[in-house]
Amino acid sequence: MTPNDPLLVDCDTGIDDALALLYLLADPGIDLRAITTVFGNTSAEIAASNTLRVLEHAGRLDIPTAIGADSSLRGTAQLAPHVHGDDGLGNTGLPCPVASPTTEPAAELIVRLARENPGRLHLLAMGPLTNLATAVLLDPELPGLVKHVTIMGGAVHHPGNVTPAAEANIANDPEAARLVLRAGWDVTLVPLDVTMTEVLTEDHRRRMLAGDAPTSRFAAEILEHYLDVYQRDVFGARQAACHDPLAAAIAIGEVCPVLAPIVAVDVDTTDGPARGKTIADTRGQYRGFPAQHGSRVRVALRTDGTFADRLVQRLCGFSSRCLDIA
Amino acid sequence: MTPNDPLLVDCDTGIDDALALLYLLADPGIDLRAITTVFGNTSAEIAASNTLRVLEHAGRLDIPTAIGADSSLRGTAQLAPHVHGDDGLGNTGLPCPVASPTTEPAAELIVRLARENPGRLHLLAMGPLTNLATAVLLDPELPGLVKHVTIMGGAVHHPGNVTPAAEANIANDPEAARLVLRAGWDVTLVPLDVTMTEVLTEDHRRRMLAGDAPTSRFAAEILEHYLDVYQRDVFGARQAACHDPLAAAIAIGEVCPVLAPIVAVDVDTTDGPARGKTIADTRGQYRGFPAQHGSRVRVALRTDGTFADRLVQRLCGFSSRCLDIA
Repeated sequence: MTPNDPLLVDCDTGIDDALALLYLLADPGIDLRAITTVFGNTSAEIAASNTLRVLEHAGRLDIPTAIGADSSLRGTAQLAPHVHGDDGLGNTGLPCPVASPTTEPAAELIVRLARENPGRLHLLAMGPLTNLATAVLLDPELPGLVKHVTIMGGAVHHPGNVTPAAEANIANDPEAARLVLRAGWDVTLVPLDVTMTEVLTEDHRRRMLAGDAPTSRFAAEILEHYLDVYQRDVFGARQAACHDPLAAAIAIGEVCPVLAPIVAVDVDTTDGPARGKTIADTRGQYRGFPAQHGSRVRVALRTDGTFADRLVQRLCGFSSRCLDIA
Repeated sequence: MTPNDPLLVDCDTGIDDALALLYLLADPGIDLRAITTVFGNTSAEIAASNTLRVLEHAGRLDIPTAIGADSSLRGTAQLAPHVHGDDGLGNTGLPCPVASPTTEPAAELIVRLARENPGRLHLLAMGPLTNLATAVLLDPELPGLVKHVTIMGGAVHHPGNVTPAAEANIANDPEAARLVLRAGWDVTLVPLDVTMTEVLTEDHRRRMLAGDAPTSRFAAEILEHYLDVYQRDVFGARQAACHDPLAAAIAIGEVCPVLAPIVAVDVDTTDGPARGKTIADTRGQYRGFPAQHGSRVRVALRTDGTFADRLVQRLCGFSSRCLDIA
């Protein structure tokens, strides 16, 4: 991402979405223009409330939040209160946000921002791809107007997380994911293969809790529930995956994957056991991934494992505008 | 495998099938009772001819060879002359075998041997699983009569080899594979995850070519074509995967996988992009693979990478009965 390129984030906020937003907001060089919400970790409406809570914390209520799809293109929705809590933020009982979402629908906002910034807008998608797919259906010229799309989603060599084959964001709307991955824009896919190897630990949480910035203490608070869930269901140890924060860091170029070939990627949209699986053609892995004609999807397959430390450092150093004003 | 347990090998001979058979025949402690052939690398008929050629080389024409299915349960057949040569043995122009296959159909032979050796027979499947599936359909009690089934097939975390998702043996007959993996017997699956990490090299070929045993020179001869193909299409270096020999070694207990959890395994039988993929539930990988109730499939996910050397050593030390007689 070139400095001054505008960024739109589409998310289902969500604990790790909140951490990713705080990470982006902590960087004054990022021109975060708008946030759109989608069902996934929680409903699109609660995701918008949580986004507003995060923006409030960061003193950035100038950034508009728009509500998007509350179910997949097929009309289904599988939320994840067992992972993110009933409120989507680890059952931390936060007060209602003071601000409200904009009335502009998410997909229309995406199209408008792309039209207003032709060839410059970056999209970062951290939830199911329903809003992006809807935006492409709304304006088929959209892919030609957007500079880059970064997507947290999928599982290539790594097992899925909602089924043995599929990762939650893609599994929640495989039809939308397939449409978005084949829309003809440049995409970076950030799958479980990398997000599961960049982990936040109890030590990270303690550092954030002891931090001076209220934002880092907020992050520590919502992280507690996430660590509980990951310990119980995934790692058997007190650590949690950095899904959305890692995708955000890759989107803004602060993390460069060590291995990220451009390969053909398909999404399983059958009703079989691989429904929602991202099928990337990595058969060229022993030959340095020779070019695959026609694909514009770069798949992050390896990062260096040092991101969580940098994320925590950033959140601990966060100085929000409202705090500056206060 | 306990010494004296009878073994039946089902295969689509094929270069690596031939190497696996030679490997088994080189061990006088293995009670190889019969070989059944199936379409796959080549037709079931050519596979039988090639099997007879191998048995002739090894001086073991006392072992019956039976021809089985020439297409999948769905009636399809995708042969692989581009990998194994038009003759299935690297276009080495070998003379016709002197002996003939038995007239007993493969599936019937499998059932008969299982009935004659209740609870003792081991099956080693190195091709599409059509014969085994047909045998189960022929005699639904078969799974209760067989001691263990070892299958070379599938790709779990590793990419496929005939499609981005699927490995050839499973892709050739997903319906049969699904039936066999769920038949209720104890199975060890030997997927690309391990067979691609145990590689024969040009150095191995030279050692076998320089060996005293005509069998090792035969192995070196057919390996040449295989190395060519793997260099061109897969590794970009003169090395080839040990698919079937590794499965044979695991079947007889000479190789113990370093990691081989018992997990639920399904096969994609849709017509989507994952058709033929083996979907193993490896989500427990970070917690030491907690037991998954009901599964009887052990999936080899890691071996120690030293097998090819041992294979070559065995083939170089091969002393066939006919040579002993001569």
